[in-house]
Amino acid sequence: MVHLNKSIREGDNADLTSERLTATFNTHEMAAHLHQGRHHAQRRREITEAIEKIPELHDSQPYPFMTREEKINEGARKLEAVTRHMEKIIDPNNAAELFHLNNEVLGLEGNACALHGVMFIPAILGQADDEQQERWLHRAVNREIIGTYAQTELGHGTMLRRLETTATFDKQTDEFVLNTPSITALKWWPGNLGKSSNYAVVVATMIIDGKSKGPHTFMVQLRDEKTHNPLKGITIGDIGPKMAYNITDNGFLGFDNFRIPRRNMLMRHAKLDRDGTYTKPSHAKINYSAMVHVRSYMISHQALFLASCLTIAVRYSAVRHQGHIDPKAPEVKVLEYQTQQHRLFPHIARAYAFNFAGAETVRLYQKVLTDIEEGDTSLMADLHALTSGLKSVVTYLGGEGMEQARMSCGGHGYSQASYFSEIYGVAIGGCTYEGENMVMMLQLARYLVKSVAAVKQGQGSKLPPLVAYLGQKSESTSLIDRVPNGGFTEYIKTFQHIARRQTFSAAEKFVKLIENGTPREVAWNKSSVELNRASRLHTRLYIAEAFVRKVNEVADPTIKDALSDLLHLHLNYELLDVATYALQDNFLSTSQLDYVRDQLYLYLEKVRPNAVSFVDSWEISDRELRSVLGRRDGHVYKNLFEWAKQSPLNRTDVLPYVDKYLKPMMKQQQSKI
Amino acid sequence: MVHLNKSIREGDNADLTSERLTATFNTHEMAAHLHQGRHHAQRRREITEAIEKIPELHDSQPYPFMTREEKINEGARKLEAVTRHMEKIIDPNNAAELFHLNNEVLGLEGNACALHGVMFIPAILGQADDEQQERWLHRAVNREIIGTYAQTELGHGTMLRRLETTATFDKQTDEFVLNTPSITALKWWPGNLGKSSNYAVVVATMIIDGKSKGPHTFMVQLRDEKTHNPLKGITIGDIGPKMAYNITDNGFLGFDNFRIPRRNMLMRHAKLDRDGTYTKPSHAKINYSAMVHVRSYMISHQALFLASCLTIAVRYSAVRHQGHIDPKAPEVKVLEYQTQQHRLFPHIARAYAFNFAGAETVRLYQKVLTDIEEGDTSLMADLHALTSGLKSVVTYLGGEGMEQARMSCGGHGYSQASYFSEIYGVAIGGCTYEGENMVMMLQLARYLVKSVAAVKQGQGSKLPPLVAYLGQKSESTSLIDRVPNGGFTEYIKTFQHIARRQTFSAAEKFVKLIENGTPREVAWNKSSVELNRASRLHTRLYIAEAFVRKVNEVADPTIKDALSDLLHLHLNYELLDVATYALQDNFLSTSQLDYVRDQLYLYLEKVRPNAVSFVDSWEISDRELRSVLGRRDGHVYKNLFEWAKQSPLNRTDVLPYVDKYLKPMMKQQQSKI
Repeated sequence: MVHLNKSIREGDNADLTSERLTATFNTHEMAAHLHQGRHHAQRRREITEAIEKIPELHDSQPYPFMTREEKINEGARKLEAVTRHMEKIIDPNNAAELFHLNNEVLGLEGNACALHGVMFIPAILGQADDEQQERWLHRAVNREIIGTYAQTELGHGTMLRRLETTATFDKQTDEFVLNTPSITALKWWPGNLGKSSNYAVVVATMIIDGKSKGPHTFMVQLRDEKTHNPLKGITIGDIGPKMAYNITDNGFLGFDNFRIPRRNMLMRHAKLDRDGTYTKPSHAKINYSAMVHVRSYMISHQALFLASCLTIAVRYSAVRHQGHIDPKAPEVKVLEYQTQQHRLFPHIARAYAFNFAGAETVRLYQKVLTDIEEGDTSLMADLHALTSGLKSVVTYLGGEGMEQARMSCGGHGYSQASYFSEIYGVAIGGCTYEGENMVMMLQLARYLVKSVAAVKQGQGSKLPPLVAYLGQKSESTSLIDRVPNGGFTEYIKTFQHIARRQTFSAAEKFVKLIENGTPREVAWNKSSVELNRASRLHTRLYIAEAFVRKVNEVADPTIKDALSDLLHLHLNYELLDVATYALQDNFLSTSQLDYVRDQLYLYLEKVRPNAVSFVDSWEISDRELRSVLGRRDGHVYKNLFEWAKQSPLNRTDVLPYVDKYLKPMMKQQQSKI
Repeated sequence: MVHLNKSIREGDNADLTSERLTATFNTHEMAAHLHQGRHHAQRRREITEAIEKIPELHDSQPYPFMTREEKINEGARKLEAVTRHMEKIIDPNNAAELFHLNNEVLGLEGNACALHGVMFIPAILGQADDEQQERWLHRAVNREIIGTYAQTELGHGTMLRRLETTATFDKQTDEFVLNTPSITALKWWPGNLGKSSNYAVVVATMIIDGKSKGPHTFMVQLRDEKTHNPLKGITIGDIGPKMAYNITDNGFLGFDNFRIPRRNMLMRHAKLDRDGTYTKPSHAKINYSAMVHVRSYMISHQALFLASCLTIAVRYSAVRHQGHIDPKAPEVKVLEYQTQQHRLFPHIARAYAFNFAGAETVRLYQKVLTDIEEGDTSLMADLHALTSGLKSVVTYLGGEGMEQARMSCGGHGYSQASYFSEIYGVAIGGCTYEGENMVMMLQLARYLVKSVAAVKQGQGSKLPPLVAYLGQKSESTSLIDRVPNGGFTEYIKTFQHIARRQTFSAAEKFVKLIENGTPREVAWNKSSVELNRASRLHTRLYIAEAFVRKVNEVADPTIKDALSDLLHLHLNYELLDVATYALQDNFLSTSQLDYVRDQLYLYLEKVRPNAVSFVDSWEISDRELRSVLGRRDGHVYKNLFEWAKQSPLNRTDVLPYVDKYLKPMMKQQQSKI
């Protein structure tokens, strides 16, 4: 028999199968919408199957049972193996295929080459001149050398200008002398810097004739290529365990009069001649592009993290029975509880929304790249503002959803068998890396404040599409309850109203402070929480719009209907969440708020029959999920027991601490009596 | 020189000292308000000093560098040592002193006797009859035997009635036969069950003559007292690693026709005679008292977790410099940023509020205990409702604050050197254990709905104090901006209004569904999210009231002024957080909301000079805090480097995985070219 939900197999947990049988859409089709079209969705499944057949690509035991050293060893083992098998399984030039392969085989806790592909090679491509690329690029691409990108220092993160590491030009020997003048100047945090990399692109303040020329990048060999021992003058090591992501060896690095040739300065943009003549880079923005690149892709990766947690929680909620709604009937699936639905379904909607917004962002990023090649940098500021906002909002709201998903599984969610805490730990790091969220929100706010100024100067009609709504007028009240079905537009107008109102009021607060004599940056600081709120509302509006655009674009009516339910749920949930802003000046009335609540509960019920199918559609394999609780087949309890029996503590019945410490304690107490 | 802030020492980080010099109150005095009066605050300091002098009570290395097995061993080592030294350091009968000693020495990741004192002994006290206490109590108190309390099963948590483990009475042999009829019936989760305990109080469904008598408690020996080997018929082990709290061996337990004497059934309340005659317990509520006991104390423990995270974040924010407010001046402390203040200060206020509410709860619990001894159980329902709500709201909001604190420290907050992730991991477990939060909120909601019914029946004036406000009438609008300074009362009235409005509307939704023919439990389920919101607002009102009561009670004007600032901050922050409810029907006007925002920013500034002193007042020692980032002396960077150098990965320059896997990978690639 052919089922719409493609995850059904014989022998599965019957409760889970019964959920899948109520699907109103084909999950393969939905997967195509989530994963860049039918072709790639199909490739993902093929890759999963190919991996299944190669045992050395499988985890040799669950990660939670390994020490950090064992995990790192296991990660390197699989990294070597997957490198050998790669060309059989995927097209290595297809980033999306490589991403999926890595997720399945290496997992999300990192690996010895995590930064090599994402930061080191792009740094060479973006910043080394042609001759330099000749020297390093093919060696890096072929992994003859392994590298990373060393920017942040123990005492300095985002403020590039304040980096303390120095590269002083020695004209006599035609070399740079690298130094770490203080403890706070130690390079700190770069991934794979500690133990894996033998090269790094290092950011240091360049000094020529005693004068600082600001931060520049340098190719630095860190370790002997044969012995892997650190070179003389280099202090290097791992910064120690983190909240998560512990297969990656984030490292520290110090220099003590370490010399590199002048031509190890990356000279695509800035240059230094043999005679000490310095040429500035022509375009300062160029350096941002690596960050924007990573941020653009972060949105959909974060959506995948959230979807992973929801896959676990929604499936488990269909398997877990607890309590009664009808006192005479058997215990119900916990998925029947409105509180459980309210905890999970709006986050399913968010995961979808983030995915759609992420796909748009990547498309915009690719357009900006093409534009730049044609000399047009006009969209860069928009893309930067958009990704700054999305990165912050998505990582934060995603974290909220992941923790709700974990807690919705009760005690078992707290066990590492669920793998929740690791997924959360890795994902939530995104609030901090690639631009700390508060800093990002305020970068977006600067863009919004400029847009408000443009509107006030009568230039509102010339604003770029992302902020065009700031130049438009509001209705005096919301009309969300006038167009009952499919009234997406009125919701969007309401979100536009509140984002606009908050943006204007925050900008006005800032301007008024300046007019009253407050220094500009002090005024900015005193307005920053309100500006932050504006950035958040602006970004949440964008996410809702991206979801609406997606639904409007879908042709297949079963997919469109299902996504429309999810979108309705999203719009009502999000509006309720920011209703404080909407209720001001009675733009939204009290009775409209009641309407929003009723709609919310209505759409929880509508989403209910498709809940499992919505998460199944992400097609995150058991291998990738690494969660006993989230297994496709729903056989949770038996496998929790099997998992627990493997725990290292269960290798012996009586652990050494019992004889060594507990028994003496017990006897000591007895002797007192 | 004598300073008001008692944490100042010579040689400290100057930025931190400068913060401490602006304190407007004596931190020892504030500590007395946080820690049950001057005497106990002084005892805490003395205990800290005593521990300092006994090296075997100190951690032998930082926990994050240990494997789980090493941690468990280290925990047992210190447990044995602290048991030996205990009577020199504290009065072992003083629970508060014991609590502090354990926090400092054993820490928050648990220990082999964690459940022994909190659950096993109270279970004997509460449920064993006098003769049974004679047999087991002194052996337990003296730790000749180590026990735990085994209730939850793999497939069942909160639903006691559905527990599957059976204890079948065999009249012939005068024994109970214990069985685990399925995998889901395995006892699962009890702390210290896996490897440490040799006894347990086990909850099982009692069967007499083929008939179930419901859940009862039994004393069961699990392991041989000499060899510690599991007894025949017992399957036992550790359930595997968890999100946190991994020194404790949460365990599983299965029975295969395991026999215990009839008199191992705990018979204080229910009884079974030799001839099979069964006597029911007289008062079903009695069994709740252990849960209520734990929940009553949880509130202040959770406050301490939150305060720990804030201590780390606020101190670090005074040490960390980043960016500029005045472009010409040096980089500023990150504590100067309004966004940073907004991230941290309202949570300082919450930690104080939770502490004050927790102290009230413990007093009420003690009163209820006295009442019960005098045969008066009238307050038990109120206490149960109160602790259910507080437990849920405090664990959830606390978690929010802890994660904000971590993120406010940027990358370094993500390092386990900060210890944030462990504190969060342990604390957030509180959302799940001792009654899952959603279940707890709905238990409170039942109490609130009953109170509404009483009001509707004209009994509003007879409601107990905790819900008396439900019987009162609202003003038509809020008056918060009419009494500018010290207008705590108008804020409380506003919180009362919104809690009352939501409670009535949720209750009415429930009643209306029933009137329209919906079965009662279905109606309850369909109203449960709204009921939940009511419970939350009710509890947050209580917390605000407890804070107001505390401030009104303080005599010392410097303490009173400082706490008043914190309370103002709290009231405005909380009101803004729930403003959606207040804006309905224009109870709060848009201009009043603007007023609340302005007040919020004003009180962030007022709290600023005391921020470090507010966290210092908790007097959480460096030993207890276990955080490099939160050190009292503020010497963060040097010690982060020292910490990292100790990381196990840095014991050798080149780790085995490099030669074993990375080099073959690098060569394999080279050979392809």
